[in-house]
Amino acid sequence: MPSRYLSFRCSVPWLILLLQTLFLIRSFFGFPRAGDIYSPSSFYPEFQDVNHMVIFGFGFFLMVLRRYGFSSTGFNFLLIVLGVQCSVLVEDLLVFLRIQQNEVGMRSLAKAVMSMTAVVISTGAVLGKANPVQLIVMTLVESVIFYMSRCINRTFLQVPEQLTLMHVHLFGAYFGVAVSSRFPGPPPGLDKNRSTPKSDLFSMLGTVFVWVFWPSFNSILADSKREAVLNTYLALAVSAVAAFMLSALTSKDGKFRMSHIHSAVLAGGVTISYTAHSIQHPWIAMILGLLGSVITILGSHCLQRCFNPALKLQDTSGVHFTFGLPAVLGAVAAVVLCVVQIGIETRWNDLSSLGYMIFVDLGAFCQTISTALVTGWITGLILNIKLLKAVHVSKYFDDQFYWEFPHLSVGF
Amino acid sequence: MPSRYLSFRCSVPWLILLLQTLFLIRSFFGFPRAGDIYSPSSFYPEFQDVNHMVIFGFGFFLMVLRRYGFSSTGFNFLLIVLGVQCSVLVEDLLVFLRIQQNEVGMRSLAKAVMSMTAVVISTGAVLGKANPVQLIVMTLVESVIFYMSRCINRTFLQVPEQLTLMHVHLFGAYFGVAVSSRFPGPPPGLDKNRSTPKSDLFSMLGTVFVWVFWPSFNSILADSKREAVLNTYLALAVSAVAAFMLSALTSKDGKFRMSHIHSAVLAGGVTISYTAHSIQHPWIAMILGLLGSVITILGSHCLQRCFNPALKLQDTSGVHFTFGLPAVLGAVAAVVLCVVQIGIETRWNDLSSLGYMIFVDLGAFCQTISTALVTGWITGLILNIKLLKAVHVSKYFDDQFYWEFPHLSVGF
Amino acid sequence: MPSRYLSFRCSVPWLILLLQTLFLIRSFFGFPRAGDIYSPSSFYPEFQDVNHMVIFGFGFFLMVLRRYGFSSTGFNFLLIVLGVQCSVLVEDLLVFLRIQQNEVGMRSLAKAVMSMTAVVISTGAVLGKANPVQLIVMTLVESVIFYMSRCINRTFLQVPEQLTLMHVHLFGAYFGVAVSSRFPGPPPGLDKNRSTPKSDLFSMLGTVFVWVFWPSFNSILADSKREAVLNTYLALAVSAVAAFMLSALTSKDGKFRMSHIHSAVLAGGVTISYTAHSIQHPWIAMILGLLGSVITILGSHCLQRCFNPALKLQDTSGVHFTFGLPAVLGAVAAVVLCVVQIGIETRWNDLSSLGYMIFVDLGAFCQTISTALVTGWITGLILNIKLLKAVHVSKYFDDQFYWEFPHLSVGF
Repeated sequence: MPSRYLSFRCSVPWLILLLQTLFLIRSFFGFPRAGDIYSPSSFYPEFQDVNHMVIFGFGFFLMVLRRYGFSSTGFNFLLIVLGVQCSVLVEDLLVFLRIQQNEVGMRSLAKAVMSMTAVVISTGAVLGKANPVQLIVMTLVESVIFYMSRCINRTFLQVPEQLTLMHVHLFGAYFGVAVSSRFPGPPPGLDKNRSTPKSDLFSMLGTVFVWVFWPSFNSILADSKREAVLNTYLALAVSAVAAFMLSALTSKDGKFRMSHIHSAVLAGGVTISYTAHSIQHPWIAMILGLLGSVITILGSHCLQRCFNPALKLQDTSGVHFTFGLPAVLGAVAAVVLCVVQIGIETRWNDLSSLGYMIFVDLGAFCQTISTALVTGWITGLILNIKLLKAVHVSKYFDDQFYWEFPHLSVGF
Repeated sequence: MPSRYLSFRCSVPWLILLLQTLFLIRSFFGFPRAGDIYSPSSFYPEFQDVNHMVIFGFGFFLMVLRRYGFSSTGFNFLLIVLGVQCSVLVEDLLVFLRIQQNEVGMRSLAKAVMSMTAVVISTGAVLGKANPVQLIVMTLVESVIFYMSRCINRTFLQVPEQLTLMHVHLFGAYFGVAVSSRFPGPPPGLDKNRSTPKSDLFSMLGTVFVWVFWPSFNSILADSKREAVLNTYLALAVSAVAAFMLSALTSKDGKFRMSHIHSAVLAGGVTISYTAHSIQHPWIAMILGLLGSVITILGSHCLQRCFNPALKLQDTSGVHFTFGLPAVLGAVAAVVLCVVQIGIETRWNDLSSLGYMIFVDLGAFCQTISTALVTGWITGLILNIKLLKAVHVSKYFDDQFYWEFPHLSVGF
Repeated sequence: MPSRYLSFRCSVPWLILLLQTLFLIRSFFGFPRAGDIYSPSSFYPEFQDVNHMVIFGFGFFLMVLRRYGFSSTGFNFLLIVLGVQCSVLVEDLLVFLRIQQNEVGMRSLAKAVMSMTAVVISTGAVLGKANPVQLIVMTLVESVIFYMSRCINRTFLQVPEQLTLMHVHLFGAYFGVAVSSRFPGPPPGLDKNRSTPKSDLFSMLGTVFVWVFWPSFNSILADSKREAVLNTYLALAVSAVAAFMLSALTSKDGKFRMSHIHSAVLAGGVTISYTAHSIQHPWIAMILGLLGSVITILGSHCLQRCFNPALKLQDTSGVHFTFGLPAVLGAVAAVVLCVVQIGIETRWNDLSSLGYMIFVDLGAFCQTISTALVTGWITGLILNIKLLKAVHVSKYFDDQFYWEFPHLSVGF
């Protein structure tokens, strides 16, 4: 046991140091001068919203476990600040290799922070089960692979830059699920993965926090910001209403269940993310928000009862139904809406271009999800090699394993 | 008892579903295309502030009861997302009936979110006593009536659009007080309506949160934003200082009382709301902030000792003195300031136009407060009909009645 | 003992009333009309960020003590609203005396809120040991002296206006340390100055909150905002990464220690504050962030083991190493960077102007730190005169001494 404790001293700090040195060296050679960077000042408030949402909001959002509050917020913070630098570095490398144009600066930083959402979501799937070393390795691998996947979509399938980023929920959720499939489940008697009223309250506050900032997330890179904001707001409002409705319908005694609210309230924002900038009729946004919420709550029942036990999956904070299913729905809806719109415009005459459209959109979707699943599964295998010292199942979901607790005999 | 539990399953979700379907259908037929909407991008940060304040801040602010944290934040969220849609729909209907001009979009959304403050304040008055069905019905009725009241002020009394919205605190407080007069008080032995240090701390954090965003609330629709922000900030600062001062003066042993801070800190923002855009001398704003704080703390002592017991009122989170009295003071101060200013300008020669001014301003004030009291009283009667299944007094102030608690034997 | 309780009733409210009356009278005579004030609308979101960070974030940040949550947030709030008015008044007075130009308005308010950071930091050093009267006196004295110190830097050493404000961390930390040296230490057996997991969690959330808004703080007055934001963000990211790394390296068993994270995460932002607007190569910002974090964590070990016991200092929330040391490093780094840049530009020919540069920069630094130490020491003496009724050491770190606790037998 002591050797295991000591092991973190010999791995975590050196790993972080290595990475940080790498980022520093690269930035010494390659980073463009800050003075060359274009950044309209009106862009800053939205950037600040997204930054606030990803770092503070998601740290709060993940605080679902009763004895894992320090790690939920602390590791979320560490992974994001590492991952942002890693993303900027990868982008920089591609600029160096002339694969894409240089636009480092606030816009590049904003994209890096947004792509960290994938890491946060994947972290949610293995919350409490992966140690810091595993999480850091996962962050790096996922940042790079998500970047590659976006590159493929952009280069070969001509998906616009800002839309490739909207695959972040889809990628994060399925990557996380695939990674978590390689982790052994907790022993049946363990009760540390349950929530307390306090952790539920915190995590609901975090959910509301993330909800408030979601319109900024969906609109920050959009060309038509006002449509993006308005559609996202409406979809979020409808999905919040639907979450309460479905929770009372599906739970015992017609009471509300906090975990339903926790997961379904954000579904509208995820579902609308591909189409927020292009929907012209608000009622479509509202329908999408409603469907997102429905699929999340039905999915949470189906997945937790049938799918997860069958595949021996254990998705700690339910990212599969919170982010994965609504993202799938959103991707499908984007294809349908696009086909209908182009169909109406061309009066269904130009079927070949329509087919090409569907092929491209579905291609981007399938490429993203399959990349996420395959690389996630491989990453899961890598994370469980002996070198990374996976945590024993009896030590799951416990802050005391990673943090000093000088507070003698004081209950949490 | 089980039948009562089940009753919510048969009412809450279907009621929400009905409303949501209605909003969807209306939005299908009537909502203008998002593309037609004008929204200057510089408007967005203020909108985001107000949205954040109303949804997150007030949810926090209402967390005063020891066993009602889930419901305080959860129901606040549900009522706002329902109410915002309802407000947009009502506005839409009036546009359809050609009563007012079309300006749906971000600005309409902002007004809808702002008018939700009335609902939040009224909810505070019956906090812990009304069940979700009653709260939803109250939200709908109040949204519509507040809209009507604003319409009367705008059409017949020529009050500018943005000022009609500033009656939101006045309307919300007196509507809430009138509604709460129809609810039976809690039994004397019940201790669930007391606060704990933790709930006090949360609710103070919420108060500070709302305090920080109040200048955005008062300035978002104002023509002269910088005056509105500066005056509101100064009034808020003075009322915060005065709150601490008066708390130490009026409480036993000269200690601070959290409930004083909780209610009086915001009084300056409420008092200044009618005049923030037009005050030219900051010292007037500071005096108003001071008076707002004084009236709130004196009011809290008088109302809780004399007025409420006499009328058998029970205003759970004290909205009458937190929002009602400062709003009355603010309305009176607006009339006085306006009279003085016009009097000085015309050298007190044009007394007839002065009289007309006073008539209009006092008319808008009296119309708002009397509408709030009468319709609130009627709404209180409606809410207590058998159909809506009022909660028994022994079940007041308890989360467990509305939320699933899977956390066995874990104290809150 | 009762006389001591009563004493606050006879001092705190009257002191506050006196001050508030003074501010009101001054504002009556001297405050320019709000209409004369220039304030570009795009400035408002940054102001809101800084306001939010100082009032809400630092209140949260200071919540490290187990039984001092009410006072940490409450007094922080009171001192800021008093101090802001005091700062505006002092600025106003200097305008009246023709020492500087008039620019009261949003910009003046923003500078007042920023200079409150010094007060917040000093409060952290005597957290739980000073009573409200002492804190209010300290706030007033510190506001005025910091303003004087800035004036000297601006007038005699020609430091640009926005850079003089960046000495706020340096001034606040050393003023606080000097004040705390005059307070007797807590008795050895007292355990109220320990943190609990909950207070640690709150204070980490506060730290993350402040972290998120730091780029706004460093860029709000800068001429080249985009460089300031980008450099600050990178420095903060690197210092957060380094904080985790060093915490795992220096603590027992390689675990993370919350107090390390708490203090070192912000070090990058403090270190970069003097140079954020002028650094052209991001890798320099990253190096500075790294060094800031290193000096904070090494400093926290050295100071707490050797320096503080030797001088009988007791710096409750560690402001010396959290803000003081990184600010010293930042000031030194600013001189070095400036010398290198000018040296390269002039090819090391114009040594006399180089010497003058160094003299001016070091002069501003030495003047600030020595003023802070000397006046802080004197203020500490003044605060402990009999009139201000210093708290007995056995009553340190206890909310119940200042706040009413109607919550019978309910543990915090």
